[in-house]
Amino acid sequence: MAEAVVLVSGGLDSATVLAIARVEGWRCRALSVDYGQRHRAELAAAAHVARSLGAEEHRVARIDLGVFGGSALTDDTIEVPTSATPGIPVTYVPARNTIFLSLALAYAEVSQADAVFIGANAVDYSGYPDCRPEYLEAYERMANLATRRAVEGRRIAIRAPIVRMAKSAIVRRGTELGVDFSQTVSCYQADAAGRACGACDACRIRRDGFAAAGVADPTRYQPGAVTAGR
Amino acid sequence: MAEAVVLVSGGLDSATVLAIARVEGWRCRALSVDYGQRHRAELAAAAHVARSLGAEEHRVARIDLGVFGGSALTDDTIEVPTSATPGIPVTYVPARNTIFLSLALAYAEVSQADAVFIGANAVDYSGYPDCRPEYLEAYERMANLATRRAVEGRRIAIRAPIVRMAKSAIVRRGTELGVDFSQTVSCYQADAAGRACGACDACRIRRDGFAAAGVADPTRYQPGAVTAGR
Repeated sequence: MAEAVVLVSGGLDSATVLAIARVEGWRCRALSVDYGQRHRAELAAAAHVARSLGAEEHRVARIDLGVFGGSALTDDTIEVPTSATPGIPVTYVPARNTIFLSLALAYAEVSQADAVFIGANAVDYSGYPDCRPEYLEAYERMANLATRRAVEGRRIAIRAPIVRMAKSAIVRRGTELGVDFSQTVSCYQADAAGRACGACDACRIRRDGFAAAGVADPTRYQPGAVTAGR
Repeated sequence: MAEAVVLVSGGLDSATVLAIARVEGWRCRALSVDYGQRHRAELAAAAHVARSLGAEEHRVARIDLGVFGGSALTDDTIEVPTSATPGIPVTYVPARNTIFLSLALAYAEVSQADAVFIGANAVDYSGYPDCRPEYLEAYERMANLATRRAVEGRRIAIRAPIVRMAKSAIVRRGTELGVDFSQTVSCYQADAAGRACGACDACRIRRDGFAAAGVADPTRYQPGAVTAGR
């Protein structure tokens, strides 16, 4: 069975990606990154997702991206927006996917994996440059020059199976594959129990995704959260 | 004055690269990575190098690459070799330069820098895949698709000014530019005071570099260290 590393954030997208990798027959190792994010409840969710979807193991790499600042997700002085804004949102974390993929690449090399799966999506988060297919293709090209395994002729694939899917399609695919979305956390400012605020961009996109998919929204919301549209 | 991020490890190569960037007229921010390496004295050396060569600031990003293992530099159960071995050495850290460049890319984006400088060298460390020019070019291509700044039309350059230089040429160039090599630490197993073992690959290559350059070796060695060839 071929080995893969799957980046698992604890959110809806990466849980679906892990389920896709498993159903394709990959033996999966889950990797989460503790990068000083506001929404730390997602790390507990990631552990649950990895276990319940049959990952062989789950590792957490710790890195403090707050050392650079510049994002509402790692800098407490920047507020998380509660309405859609034009352009690249302040929740964009500089070079985040590049850093995450690089950690996954190290893990893949050590564990002799032939693929790295990432839940990047270019549809809902069109403002994030590092979620676009052309970025991911350039990353794969670079990765195949970067590692000992690649030099020795074992190519590595960077797989983003949901990159062109609308959120509603991701919800449907995950539901088909038995993902328990009630255990996933997408909210940028979830509370310690992993309950969603209902108001941030990530909550809005997620809620609209369930509505468009015609799937009941199993998200656990904070008391008093905005859940209009459920 | 244009802004750059310079990866500074505390070693001879990256000190020379910082001096080159400064003489080219860049305003430099130094970045070091505390990745659980054996040779932690290099981080103290990095702070000294950054200060003495006029970096505007020096940040240290912490990340535990020991979580993946697989290298003599981060895994205490793998011994540092004391003689040259064919192929890629066990001191190779999986995806190290990819991870370091990705952190530098984040810092560059936050600090509005137009270049990242790295002391990669394809001559002496020909066994490291992520020191080759073709790798660095692929990284640059990817980086220019990865960030908000790039999407907004401000390209980022990945600069490796010593990539094709022999160690002796690096020693000569650094000496011309006033680098105090006595404060740099190259040894893979330096002691807490930053004194070199004299026996590992890095010590051997460095010592031979000074000899070939005709420059007196200012390296501080441990008592009883192998220093033949000085």
